[in-house]
Amino acid sequence: MHSADSIELQVSLLLFVALAGYMLASRVRQPAVVGQILLGIVIGPSLLGWVSYTPLVSNLAHIGAIVLLFVVGLEFRLKDIMRWQFVLIGLFGVLAPLLGGYLVAIAFGFATHKAMLLGICLTATSIAITADTLREMGQLGSVTAKAIIGAAVIDDVLALMALSVGNQVIEGNLLLMDSLLLLGKGLLFFVGGAYIGQKYVCRLMILIDSSNLAKKYRELAFIFAMMMAFLFAILAELFGLSAIVGAFVAGVALEGVKLQHSKDFKEGAEYVRILFAAMFFVSLGVLVDLSALDRQLLGFLFVITLVALLTKVVGCGVPAKLLGYSNRDALVIGLGMAPRGEVAMVIALLGLNLGLIEQPLYVVLVLMSVLTTLMVPPVLRMLYQGAE
Amino acid sequence: MHSADSIELQVSLLLFVALAGYMLASRVRQPAVVGQILLGIVIGPSLLGWVSYTPLVSNLAHIGAIVLLFVVGLEFRLKDIMRWQFVLIGLFGVLAPLLGGYLVAIAFGFATHKAMLLGICLTATSIAITADTLREMGQLGSVTAKAIIGAAVIDDVLALMALSVGNQVIEGNLLLMDSLLLLGKGLLFFVGGAYIGQKYVCRLMILIDSSNLAKKYRELAFIFAMMMAFLFAILAELFGLSAIVGAFVAGVALEGVKLQHSKDFKEGAEYVRILFAAMFFVSLGVLVDLSALDRQLLGFLFVITLVALLTKVVGCGVPAKLLGYSNRDALVIGLGMAPRGEVAMVIALLGLNLGLIEQPLYVVLVLMSVLTTLMVPPVLRMLYQGAE
Repeated sequence: MHSADSIELQVSLLLFVALAGYMLASRVRQPAVVGQILLGIVIGPSLLGWVSYTPLVSNLAHIGAIVLLFVVGLEFRLKDIMRWQFVLIGLFGVLAPLLGGYLVAIAFGFATHKAMLLGICLTATSIAITADTLREMGQLGSVTAKAIIGAAVIDDVLALMALSVGNQVIEGNLLLMDSLLLLGKGLLFFVGGAYIGQKYVCRLMILIDSSNLAKKYRELAFIFAMMMAFLFAILAELFGLSAIVGAFVAGVALEGVKLQHSKDFKEGAEYVRILFAAMFFVSLGVLVDLSALDRQLLGFLFVITLVALLTKVVGCGVPAKLLGYSNRDALVIGLGMAPRGEVAMVIALLGLNLGLIEQPLYVVLVLMSVLTTLMVPPVLRMLYQGAE
Repeated sequence: MHSADSIELQVSLLLFVALAGYMLASRVRQPAVVGQILLGIVIGPSLLGWVSYTPLVSNLAHIGAIVLLFVVGLEFRLKDIMRWQFVLIGLFGVLAPLLGGYLVAIAFGFATHKAMLLGICLTATSIAITADTLREMGQLGSVTAKAIIGAAVIDDVLALMALSVGNQVIEGNLLLMDSLLLLGKGLLFFVGGAYIGQKYVCRLMILIDSSNLAKKYRELAFIFAMMMAFLFAILAELFGLSAIVGAFVAGVALEGVKLQHSKDFKEGAEYVRILFAAMFFVSLGVLVDLSALDRQLLGFLFVITLVALLTKVVGCGVPAKLLGYSNRDALVIGLGMAPRGEVAMVIALLGLNLGLIEQPLYVVLVLMSVLTTLMVPPVLRMLYQGAE
């Protein structure tokens, strides 16, 4: 019963640490994710060594990442967010960090494909963390908040696409034609997947929902939706994209489905997310081996974190200012886009799994994510308080 | 990305087969579990070979079994069911199949420890399947139904305890003192676990629920409850019991908790159960290797299935008759207790994992479970229709 022993032990330990992460995060007034990652580092091999990144932990984390991106997708209302101003802010909010991260990495002597992955890691904004910070300050309804969230969403989509393309490009062949082809394939999957999903998968779900079987077994639509998340993940990989992109597109496609007889599949997905994303965040910390950090990498961490902040403030703030926002609002928008959070970590983890980057760089990227996330809430709070 | 590939593929395939299982089951007017196991056999190594029992599938199934028993525990209201009549029906409903199964197995030349496990497998009644059959016939509110469900619950508790004791006893030492000691330990864990759980764990949950942290993060109590399920599973193993017994006790302990601010942890556990128990049931079929069945085992399957039916009909029906139920009601009670369903399979799986039984006997036990489950609903329907 050794394997059984260890599965219960590992699941309950991961959940316990996730709970403790909430408490720690609340103490230091940070989002829960931050507490969970930090405690993950503590129980991981670099400090206590209670949990290591076994295949089981990796499987749980993988399910967590898929379900997380599916649920994020479910929160997207394409119509509300697809405004050209937001697209513009989001676009520059991706290009600036992509270029900035790439150039800095090259300047520090990293190989092209690593520099590329670094750039991609800097692109993503964590919607969850930004939205949560604004919610805590009672600013979720403001125009600025809408711009931030809209642009952050565009930003995440672009980051996921950059990841999809980058996935292939960073293998070595940086030919322009190939990149364009892959970008095309990525776009095709995004648009095609969302279209087919909204047109056929949703219809199928409604068909299931109105069947006699679903009236008897109200859980059918939920199982179907979760199956779709994993199926789209496979399809994304067949298109050369990353699996989480597929789960995200599945979520976007199913966002508008209204069911009558079935259990609420969104609520179900949310419960599964709560459990598995918490284990995923802890596992991200477990993967961090602090002993990999040397003096030179610490320097690089400092620079790349600074670049991560500045490229968002400039890349989003300047377009916002040009679009007519006030100085303060433009600064808030830029800063509000700075927390990298989970998406950057998912990308870094992918790079680690693919063997594109090694432990030291992975640790730098995770810490950069944590640091940008830690820095933004207090600064935003100051900006809003200064204005009152 | 090979491991990632395969995790999405396997999860979506298992969920797809689970869905198809609902459809198949509905076509042949059987509970969903039956359809899922049958299709699991189809996609398993003995027929199509699409899915094999990899460590990943095993992990998913293990999580499913833990969450399933936790949710079953959450449905137990100890007070409603602990009536002496039900205890009596349940007790004889366990003793008769235990003895019957043991004797038949010995007669067929099986070793003592295998005969013991066989007996234990015959004891469990599937509450889910019985309740579902009665619900479909609109008989859930009847006195007979209450007796069946009450006795089935007692029955399951006794079966789980027999399993816990058996787990150790079947290792070889059948000393009476040891067995009594283990029975004592089992009882201690049951009573102590449920008591400590209801007294302290519930209080802790209510404390969490009323904290400021839980008002901000409404998912805390849910994560805590799930952690407890896995923690009790570990504790059960430390007491020499099986892990699922622990999850069950955790469920019983938390049944009465009423929370005010948090998300509904019972609903959350139910959603997780839906997903993972479905994968668990399919995986039970995947484990069945039909090629292990030869002519002699088919004969044994026939006999053991007959014994499984008769010992419940006699073991529960006779006490019911003596307690004053009519002939038909006593027969309905006996038959209603006959479906073995998931608990028998969990026990058989445990025996397989522990190396106590081999593939052929495991296959016989799973098929016995499926057959008893298949036979009861039509016979019950006939009995009720004949009376109208």
